Amino acid sequence: MSPLSIYLAGPEVFLPNAAEIGAAKVALCAEFGFLGLYPGEAGEPLPAEPAAMAAALYARCLAMMRRADTIVANLTPFRGPSADVGTAYELGYMAALGKPCFAYSNAAGTLLERTRRLDSKVARNGNDWVDGQGITVEEFGLFDNLMLPCGLAAPAVCRAVPAAARYTDLQAFRACLALARDHR
Amino acid sequence: MSPLSIYLAGPEVFLPNAAEIGAAKVALCAEFGFLGLYPGEAGEPLPAEPAAMAAALYARCLAMMRRADTIVANLTPFRGPSADVGTAYELGYMAALGKPCFAYSNAAGTLLERTRRLDSKVARNGNDWVDGQGITVEEFGLFDNLMLPCGLAAPAVCRAVPAAARYTDLQAFRACLALARDHR
Repeated sequence: MSPLSIYLAGPEVFLPNAAEIGAAKVALCAEFGFLGLYPGEAGEPLPAEPAAMAAALYARCLAMMRRADTIVANLTPFRGPSADVGTAYELGYMAALGKPCFAYSNAAGTLLERTRRLDSKVARNGNDWVDGQGITVEEFGLFDNLMLPCGLAAPAVCRAVPAAARYTDLQAFRACLALARDHR
Repeated sequence: MSPLSIYLAGPEVFLPNAAEIGAAKVALCAEFGFLGLYPGEAGEPLPAEPAAMAAALYARCLAMMRRADTIVANLTPFRGPSADVGTAYELGYMAALGKPCFAYSNAAGTLLERTRRLDSKVARNGNDWVDGQGITVEEFGLFDNLMLPCGLAAPAVCRAVPAAARYTDLQAFRACLALARDHR
C-alpha cells in the first residue's frame, strides 16, 4: 500500500534555504509513514517569462494538491498579523476537495493580540475591537481569521518560537504529523 | 430561469458599515442580472460562545459558497501588503469547486512595490528581491502571491482609489461584474 501523501503548504518556499527546509519536512513525513509533497521542490524546467512562470508554478501546486491525500499548512504569520495568503488559498482549496486539513503556527496568541502589537491604535469600541481605521479586528479567541481554523480536522498546533526560527522551527510541524497519523 | 449567483468575498464584512456595503454590492449584482450572496448579511441567530459562533459563521460561508455559481473576491490589501486571508481561503475554496473566479483590488501596483513601501529593507539579492529578514519577495509582476491571480477566469481588476475609500469604492467591483457577465 502506498503511503498517504501530505501537501506541505507554507511560506518557507520563500526562504533562502527553501530546499533544505522542504527536505527536512519530507524526511519528517517519512518518519511518520507519510509521503511529503513539497511545492518548493525542483520540478520540470519553468518558462522564463514571469507570467508564464507564475502560471506554471500555479499548475504545479494544483496538481500536487490534487494528488495529495491531506495538507499540513504552515499558518505562521507572514508580513503582518495573519498567515501567508498563498497558504490560505491552498488550505481553502484542499478543504473544498474534502481532504482532511491540518495546520500549525510558530506563533502563539490570538489574531487580536498580534494585531494590537502591530497597530497601537487598536482599541475597544463597545463589544468589538477596531483598528486605527475603524475596521473590526475579529476576536473569537482564534489564532487567525476564522476561515483558517474552522475547517481543520484537528486543532491547529500553535507554539511560539524564537524570532530567528519563526519559519524554520519544525516542532509544531512534527506535532501536526502526529495529529495526522492519529486521524487515519 | 433563476439568475446566476455570486459569492461576495472580501474584508468589507469587518467595516462598521458592513451591511450597507453588502446591500450596495447586492444591488449592483442585480443591475447585472446576478444574485449577490453576501457573507456579512444577517442570517440565523448565532451561538453566543465565541468558538461556536466562529464555527457557525464558517458553516454559513461554506453553505453560501456551495450554493453560489461564482465568486467575486475583494483582494484589496488588508493589514499588510497582501489580501485578507479569509478571502484568499474562500477564493481557493471556490477554485477547487471548479467555479469561475473573479477578483478585484482597490490598489494598483505589484506585491513587490507594496512590500517595498512597507519594509524599507527590501533590496535586490542577485536576481531576487528579499525583505529585511532575507525572505524572498515574489516578483512576477502580479498584484499578490501568484496563487491568487493564477486561478482567475479573467484578469483581476486592480485600480488605485483614495485611501479613505479603499474598502468601500465599488468601481473595480462593478468592472468585475461586467467581466462575469461577459464570461457567461
